[in-house]
Amino acid sequence: MSNTRQPLRAGILGATGAVGQRFITLLANHPGFVIQRLGASARSAGRRYEEAVTWRMATPLPASVASLVVVECKPEAFNDCDVIFSGLDASVAGDIELSFLAADHCVISNAKNHRMADDVPLVVPTVNPEHLHMIPAQRLRRNLKRGFLVTISNCASVGVCAALQALKAKQSVLGKVDRVNVVTMQAISGAGYPGMSAMDMLDNVVPYIGGEEEKLEAEPFKILGTPHTTVQQVKDQVANGKVAEARKLATAHQGALIEPLKDFVISATCNRVPVIDGHMASMSVGFARDAKQANMNKETMLATVKEAFAQYETLASSKALGCVSAPHPPIHLLDAVDRPQPRLDRDRGNGYAVTIGRVRPCPL
Amino acid sequence: MSNTRQPLRAGILGATGAVGQRFITLLANHPGFVIQRLGASARSAGRRYEEAVTWRMATPLPASVASLVVVECKPEAFNDCDVIFSGLDASVAGDIELSFLAADHCVISNAKNHRMADDVPLVVPTVNPEHLHMIPAQRLRRNLKRGFLVTISNCASVGVCAALQALKAKQSVLGKVDRVNVVTMQAISGAGYPGMSAMDMLDNVVPYIGGEEEKLEAEPFKILGTPHTTVQQVKDQVANGKVAEARKLATAHQGALIEPLKDFVISATCNRVPVIDGHMASMSVGFARDAKQANMNKETMLATVKEAFAQYETLASSKALGCVSAPHPPIHLLDAVDRPQPRLDRDRGNGYAVTIGRVRPCPL
Amino acid sequence: MSNTRQPLRAGILGATGAVGQRFITLLANHPGFVIQRLGASARSAGRRYEEAVTWRMATPLPASVASLVVVECKPEAFNDCDVIFSGLDASVAGDIELSFLAADHCVISNAKNHRMADDVPLVVPTVNPEHLHMIPAQRLRRNLKRGFLVTISNCASVGVCAALQALKAKQSVLGKVDRVNVVTMQAISGAGYPGMSAMDMLDNVVPYIGGEEEKLEAEPFKILGTPHTTVQQVKDQVANGKVAEARKLATAHQGALIEPLKDFVISATCNRVPVIDGHMASMSVGFARDAKQANMNKETMLATVKEAFAQYETLASSKALGCVSAPHPPIHLLDAVDRPQPRLDRDRGNGYAVTIGRVRPCPL
Amino acid sequence: MSNTRQPLRAGILGATGAVGQRFITLLANHPGFVIQRLGASARSAGRRYEEAVTWRMATPLPASVASLVVVECKPEAFNDCDVIFSGLDASVAGDIELSFLAADHCVISNAKNHRMADDVPLVVPTVNPEHLHMIPAQRLRRNLKRGFLVTISNCASVGVCAALQALKAKQSVLGKVDRVNVVTMQAISGAGYPGMSAMDMLDNVVPYIGGEEEKLEAEPFKILGTPHTTVQQVKDQVANGKVAEARKLATAHQGALIEPLKDFVISATCNRVPVIDGHMASMSVGFARDAKQANMNKETMLATVKEAFAQYETLASSKALGCVSAPHPPIHLLDAVDRPQPRLDRDRGNGYAVTIGRVRPCPL
Repeated sequence: MSNTRQPLRAGILGATGAVGQRFITLLANHPGFVIQRLGASARSAGRRYEEAVTWRMATPLPASVASLVVVECKPEAFNDCDVIFSGLDASVAGDIELSFLAADHCVISNAKNHRMADDVPLVVPTVNPEHLHMIPAQRLRRNLKRGFLVTISNCASVGVCAALQALKAKQSVLGKVDRVNVVTMQAISGAGYPGMSAMDMLDNVVPYIGGEEEKLEAEPFKILGTPHTTVQQVKDQVANGKVAEARKLATAHQGALIEPLKDFVISATCNRVPVIDGHMASMSVGFARDAKQANMNKETMLATVKEAFAQYETLASSKALGCVSAPHPPIHLLDAVDRPQPRLDRDRGNGYAVTIGRVRPCPL
Repeated sequence: MSNTRQPLRAGILGATGAVGQRFITLLANHPGFVIQRLGASARSAGRRYEEAVTWRMATPLPASVASLVVVECKPEAFNDCDVIFSGLDASVAGDIELSFLAADHCVISNAKNHRMADDVPLVVPTVNPEHLHMIPAQRLRRNLKRGFLVTISNCASVGVCAALQALKAKQSVLGKVDRVNVVTMQAISGAGYPGMSAMDMLDNVVPYIGGEEEKLEAEPFKILGTPHTTVQQVKDQVANGKVAEARKLATAHQGALIEPLKDFVISATCNRVPVIDGHMASMSVGFARDAKQANMNKETMLATVKEAFAQYETLASSKALGCVSAPHPPIHLLDAVDRPQPRLDRDRGNGYAVTIGRVRPCPL
Repeated sequence: MSNTRQPLRAGILGATGAVGQRFITLLANHPGFVIQRLGASARSAGRRYEEAVTWRMATPLPASVASLVVVECKPEAFNDCDVIFSGLDASVAGDIELSFLAADHCVISNAKNHRMADDVPLVVPTVNPEHLHMIPAQRLRRNLKRGFLVTISNCASVGVCAALQALKAKQSVLGKVDRVNVVTMQAISGAGYPGMSAMDMLDNVVPYIGGEEEKLEAEPFKILGTPHTTVQQVKDQVANGKVAEARKLATAHQGALIEPLKDFVISATCNRVPVIDGHMASMSVGFARDAKQANMNKETMLATVKEAFAQYETLASSKALGCVSAPHPPIHLLDAVDRPQPRLDRDRGNGYAVTIGRVRPCPL
Repeated sequence: MSNTRQPLRAGILGATGAVGQRFITLLANHPGFVIQRLGASARSAGRRYEEAVTWRMATPLPASVASLVVVECKPEAFNDCDVIFSGLDASVAGDIELSFLAADHCVISNAKNHRMADDVPLVVPTVNPEHLHMIPAQRLRRNLKRGFLVTISNCASVGVCAALQALKAKQSVLGKVDRVNVVTMQAISGAGYPGMSAMDMLDNVVPYIGGEEEKLEAEPFKILGTPHTTVQQVKDQVANGKVAEARKLATAHQGALIEPLKDFVISATCNRVPVIDGHMASMSVGFARDAKQANMNKETMLATVKEAFAQYETLASSKALGCVSAPHPPIHLLDAVDRPQPRLDRDRGNGYAVTIGRVRPCPL
């Protein structure tokens, strides 16, 4: 996508909300995109964006965006957009995104509604970009020409999945991860704006985030899962121009196009802490080890785990792809005993990188 | 102790520090004690307490204490005290407390130095008050007449041990707890004053507390351990006036007077969060279950666990003992999905109670 | 009021809101009151209080209150109450309070709606309790038998007015205060619950509180004002049983029963800071001084100002009145250079006292 | 300076401290400078910077700086530097900076020690860059060839002086500012690291910053003052090569080279609030107005004041000077009623700009 010299014209749904504002901040200075159209509720439509929004980002509202007139989130209003980013609230995202998809738009959504759908990629760019290979099959199943629907994961899943994917690359040495206990300490920005009450977040921790543990106990199975053989077959057939055969294949396989991770258990507890940006997670990871792996001494094992994190590479960050916002490296491994810390490490890789520290053996 | 009508005359070591100030706050309005003597470093000695201290408690410095003249931490200066509370820093607590013990003082210490010593009780009042039965044996081993040294545990151990002790009471139904994963989110007051830098604690979490994980992975073994048979035997002999026999028993058993918990593993990760008071912990607990226990359905198991917490009783809180500061109940079990929260629940039982919530099955 | 041995039966309007919860916390353990009736919106009516409320106080919900069934805020449902405390939101308080007043209820309101009304006392108990003498005239004007409506001031006005009232007692020496510049740093509890967004209150200050500066620039004129001569005359006539004459007097004087402070200017800037409870204000005070006063040297003047604060007494705190919750002293004067601080000083006098520090000459 | 194509080689004194780390962050990516030498205490000297420092900035330590070997703060170790930035603590800055000056170094200091010295410019770049014209006179007085000592102001003075300087540009319309009341709410970063205790800065405000009010009541007099005629004369003579005459002039005028602001009073109160970065100040400004100015209506006056801020220009930000880090514009004037806010506005102009809001008439 980012190889294109001509920047893509982007539309943003839910543009006045917290996620929408974040999209604007990220896209406004991105060489690969130009912000073309902003969609919001009927109440905001017709007003200049700067009047419709209560801008809460720490970087000023870009002047070029300030004067755009907000439109309603209807597909026909976005016909001159190459790609649509949806920051819609889950209460409305489901239907609106489907209407955009039906109109053959290219939709990338932050909402949870379609994440677990059989033919919708759930992508963490630094973890499973190859799940995008599902798009040809998705198009054939849904009779789309150029449109697609891709979802991005819950924010807390990003770090967890990046760590697990890195360990997978050393699976032959370490064994397969078969259990994870994760306790998160999540920032308030994840709750949007106004989001959390200050009365709950000064001098306090709230040990509950509605729906978050369920997501964190479900999404990694899909994100770390394996594309069904159909995915590649359809892609190849389409590439070879054999669309009819591809369509047959795509519809023949009725179930999920991603086979979820097996022999794996994850237990999540999610806490909200008084931090603006940057989610922390304390993870304990268990490995299913064969006899040889089980014999590895602790030092070697620890060193291999660290190596897995330090050496982790991802297609998204590859020079070949040329995605300017992708982080190099995708994982920062820190030796300092008191890191990572949200305030000091959240901006690594412009906020796209994951920082890992305190890697040590677990007595369990 | 608190049955006595005559209040005990208390001395406080390290009186100007954060722990010392907390001792003063707790004792000043306690009917069972009168603050008699305040000890601090040579630098503070000779000054009125209100001049020597930078008072940081949220309750005003009690007037009766303000005018006391601080003395050095030497045993002879505390001869008119019935009991000594040590809030000394670990860097000096070791030797000073031993010198007080050698002078036959009754010392209750918050410092870590002697916690794991073979003949020193490590007591969480609501968990293992019966470990105080070691005192007769301790006296005989150390040639004390009335003195003793009792330590109180690391603050993070309190909640963890209370929960585990409550589960022990239902062990026949639930099985024995054999593994615990605990991730703490600890308040800054635990670091004393000035303690943590505000630069580290605004908009941030620090995933490390020096020495804390080691304590949390060690102290529960002792706190939840079982007094060696010698302990009761010595106590009985002393009660019967057979001191020579008791001494023989006390010295015959050379090792630890508490047999640590067996077949048990604990893994701890300690985080410092921007909260003034009140430690949180997210705990996952595993049970070693026999065939019958393993057959219990999840609902029954969950109900039994909750029952264990709700019904937990402790000698310390018994009316017979009459300890006015002991919490009734020692454990508060909350149903609300988003509790406990430090700010809202830390003052339950005047700060002595443990609050537990979000009890639920763990996928692991 | 609190001399009565029989506790007063209290009703609370807006009981589920932040102010209502505070009323419950304050009244539940007060010997002079028993909580009889809780009023809230139609949505909450009919439910047990513990089910209708999201309790956000740091002290647990009193058991006796938890089981009360909430009623709608209609006068007839509160007939067995001796006094009604209104914590209603300003959007509904105006009409509802008038309906209670029309039904001859005794209403004490925290809402702003009627504060500036001609015949409604606006009372800070430690500042102007004598404004309650307006009640007989209010009753005659509004044809009430036993009912009344008394309002309490905006929270930020309390400290400002207490300080100014204390200075008034030394007016002959210091001169009359004729100008005040006040910059507040107010706690978030003043905004209720959920109130401020945590996104606005972590690592931030918001230099604006809607309507607050207007209140702070208006209320002190009334609070520090002087009852019109009519007030005492009516009170006396009523006391002597001459109701007809009293009524004539009460209605003859058409305007405000309190003559506002004259020759006085106040400039206010209100900031919201990340503090849970306890409003701070930085005040600069100017005096209109005659020749003699102007000659006073700075040291004497400073000493007199401090004396004014330290010696301040108020009827509300007098033993004769016997109000157990009134603070002794009403003003705490601190010498420490870095006080007052919200966290350390907000609970003085159980939260009813005002703490003043850093008294020093202003170059202006 | 920044017109030079060749970047200046910079030395940093006090490089491991909070100010030093800030200097590194600012200089590392600045095209006009290359970091050549890092000085710190004898304890750090000889170690690689990354080992000597506890890096607390939110941006990672630049790799090129990490490997530099720290040296002691001795002039001869910095001979290959074009300019020295001093972030030394005031306890040592006085003597060390003088030793560097004696060695003919070009020193720019953040320390307070020499700020008020007669021949040392105290510069806020966006306010009084023309005070740098003192340098030729300073050199002649102190027998320097190329060296100089320039100080930068207390951080809280920056915003206050920028606002006042902007008003000065409209002095003929508005009248001369003759009194200022300023109440600051300052961020903790100003206290360095570790600086403030987290116990003092969570859920709290500290109404005192040692020495800060004194600085804020003194520095603006110099910053906003007028260079003595000698300054320009000496500069001209030096430019014309008449060094002997220049020297005579420079030493003939014995007193301060800057004539402080007259007929001006400033009253400051400084508070520390729980904010990481970004100082806030609430300012009330009074004008000495002649008859005509006094007749201006409030709306016109307000509009003119806003115009003064919005139109403010400064030599430092001029294109001619080409200083890449200078902010355009130097003052941001915001209309939103609740701005500026530290978290949202502190990064304007890369942190160099001042943001002003809530401009309104003051009742005083």
